[in-house]
Amino acid sequence: MRIHQMHVTPIAISDPPLLNAAGLHAPYALRTVMELVTDDGISGVSEIPGNVKTNEALESIRDRVIGRDPFQLRSISAAIAEGGDRTDGGTAAGGPDSRGASPWDRRTMVHVQSAIDVACHDIMGKAIGRPVVDLLGGAVRDRVPFAAYLFYKEEGAGGTFGLDIDPAAEGWAAARQRRAHTPDEIVEQARAMCLEFGFKSIKLKGGAFPPDQEANAILALRKAFGPDVPLRLDPNAIWELDTAVRIGLRLQGVLEYFEDPVRGQEAMAALRRKIDIPLATNMCTTSFADLPSAVALGSEDIILSDHHFWGGLLPSVELGRICTTFGRGLSMHSNSHVGISLAAMTHLAAAVPSLSYAVDTHYPWQSEEIVVGGRMQFEDGSLAVSREPGLGVELDRDALERLHRNYLACGLTERNDEVELQKIRPGWGFEPTRW
Amino acid sequence: MRIHQMHVTPIAISDPPLLNAAGLHAPYALRTVMELVTDDGISGVSEIPGNVKTNEALESIRDRVIGRDPFQLRSISAAIAEGGDRTDGGTAAGGPDSRGASPWDRRTMVHVQSAIDVACHDIMGKAIGRPVVDLLGGAVRDRVPFAAYLFYKEEGAGGTFGLDIDPAAEGWAAARQRRAHTPDEIVEQARAMCLEFGFKSIKLKGGAFPPDQEANAILALRKAFGPDVPLRLDPNAIWELDTAVRIGLRLQGVLEYFEDPVRGQEAMAALRRKIDIPLATNMCTTSFADLPSAVALGSEDIILSDHHFWGGLLPSVELGRICTTFGRGLSMHSNSHVGISLAAMTHLAAAVPSLSYAVDTHYPWQSEEIVVGGRMQFEDGSLAVSREPGLGVELDRDALERLHRNYLACGLTERNDEVELQKIRPGWGFEPTRW
Repeated sequence: MRIHQMHVTPIAISDPPLLNAAGLHAPYALRTVMELVTDDGISGVSEIPGNVKTNEALESIRDRVIGRDPFQLRSISAAIAEGGDRTDGGTAAGGPDSRGASPWDRRTMVHVQSAIDVACHDIMGKAIGRPVVDLLGGAVRDRVPFAAYLFYKEEGAGGTFGLDIDPAAEGWAAARQRRAHTPDEIVEQARAMCLEFGFKSIKLKGGAFPPDQEANAILALRKAFGPDVPLRLDPNAIWELDTAVRIGLRLQGVLEYFEDPVRGQEAMAALRRKIDIPLATNMCTTSFADLPSAVALGSEDIILSDHHFWGGLLPSVELGRICTTFGRGLSMHSNSHVGISLAAMTHLAAAVPSLSYAVDTHYPWQSEEIVVGGRMQFEDGSLAVSREPGLGVELDRDALERLHRNYLACGLTERNDEVELQKIRPGWGFEPTRW
Repeated sequence: MRIHQMHVTPIAISDPPLLNAAGLHAPYALRTVMELVTDDGISGVSEIPGNVKTNEALESIRDRVIGRDPFQLRSISAAIAEGGDRTDGGTAAGGPDSRGASPWDRRTMVHVQSAIDVACHDIMGKAIGRPVVDLLGGAVRDRVPFAAYLFYKEEGAGGTFGLDIDPAAEGWAAARQRRAHTPDEIVEQARAMCLEFGFKSIKLKGGAFPPDQEANAILALRKAFGPDVPLRLDPNAIWELDTAVRIGLRLQGVLEYFEDPVRGQEAMAALRRKIDIPLATNMCTTSFADLPSAVALGSEDIILSDHHFWGGLLPSVELGRICTTFGRGLSMHSNSHVGISLAAMTHLAAAVPSLSYAVDTHYPWQSEEIVVGGRMQFEDGSLAVSREPGLGVELDRDALERLHRNYLACGLTERNDEVELQKIRPGWGFEPTRW
């Protein structure tokens, strides 16, 4: 069995105006869909954050992928990284192209590695008639719980081709259009999302308003949902250490974990010594190369894995072992995404014993889908782990074509939340540390 | 597909009188052969160090294995560890039953986990028509180099049922019968072994004679083989720190690595600061639970993995990622073994990118085999990685039965090198630190 074809399709999905430390989500989130087809006609798919540079990188490695056996993950990975650093277990996940200052990751090659890894896993699963999770050591859970991912936001549902405000919308569809700035508006958003999807854990993306306002939102959520619903706050590293200590002391006993309140491993380690809340990160420890200093400094209690950012499913499983070995918990980070990523996240979360936290997902904020059967359905806040071969999803080629046309029409080529927020707050600029 | 039958067969294989820090090898080395058979008739095999306690433990977990899908490695592992420590990634490889003072490992459950893991991998490979290496991320090398493993020894070839001294033996078969105490005798052993098997790296098991005598053997090997043949010395942690420093300074620039010259992570770390030879271990860092202190102390440069001692192939692959991440090299440890273990070691070594050292094997010291086709053939010191489904070996049931009868007849139930040496040196006793 050899990889015979490789198709790279950039898509744009409607995305609401969600606020974060770096600015505002554009009306469309970009994703790139990768399809590999073998000489015996098996198709494997994957989905990664969209960026014109990533798409170019995917095109550039085409010759290194075509003709290869999809089971040879490590040698394919080494071929992709060819000329680069091969000391990182052959996946280049800890390569030299390091994370930038903004809260999304700019490392291109690690996304490329992830795209290939996931599509190959999909092919392998289909070839052997087994779900992807069975290629990762098997399932340790048959359902994966997800968390309600709350955002400060402006009014709107995203998209510019007739998909924005729908006055007839009801329930979550109505709530996801609404503005959310105040604690009451955040609680209202949480109620609608949890009612619709059944989530049992709640995460608030912070870093958008002054810290006490965001802490007040957490306290309002605690009052509304009670102590049995774990709460998380993620200011995306935009706070001063003193601010994080002060807010941390306000939220001790309330937060399940505090995600990247401050920037960098040193500041995280300093904060960790001063407050009694587990610290989580997807910003200060984001690659295998970051782990030795993370362990030496004690910069976090929990790592938010993300197979898109760690080079794929195989390295992510290995990250799970590292977390267990070095006393880290494991949770999972998300970006705006559709069903291929959701399926891959679910298989990964089912395979890793230590992944004991409800998984982040932006999925409720999206409304479109590119897999046959349409939007995936959460039950009681969780997804069943598919027992179908591969990822258990099939490309809806009409939907893919439609969302590819969105990509061509929307004019976006990369994510830039700063520029989006400047459109409604002229002169606004990203600051690595704001409060 | 479900595991339907489990067969546990203890065997005894002829083993020469090899000396080490703990004493002398008995005339027979014990192994336990595990066979799992699925309801659709697929047989998976594995081989682990033999011990009556291990055999009892294997019997005790029978009900937790029968009826399970062999792809569900992590949940089978968790079921085996049931009631024990599940915080170690579900494999219990770092459980509470820690390594004893003698240079072989007494942890029973980790051997049990390994037996199940390897037999399940063999089944999975056969079920999907793929070699085991393809279930571990694929092969990064198509041949695996092994090292000549030299031993100080008494005269004899081992076994008591007509298998000892053969006066007509020639070449390696003659050399493996001979005594080896002096540097010249060690060089003679090395020449015969390398001529027969083509090995390009040499390891000397030390700890049997005074340190300077062993250092002289290394210098004699260097003189005989030149600087292009890497040399290793393994005194099994029986030296004082001062002795190891002194000998280390004699052997700087000569040894590829120095394996466990002193006992414990602290002493290894202290030695590492005083000599300029990479330190390797399979004694001070032998489980996932040992890794945090190993990293904090800096106790070694290279870890000798061993899938029998780390819970199987899946955890061993994960160990490979940890070594890469935390700046450790990876090599591989061995015990007296036959072809099933050799096949499993070869698949593992082919899958792990960082496993860049020639692998230890006792295989040349054994003469029997339990796989169809008989003794495996090294070419230029390496083995080709099988592309046959599973491990690529098939049980020779007549040979298995014969070696099981050896087990019943030999009267041994566990390895005890101290008792064996006392038979020829009355009053001899193991000392954790001798020189």
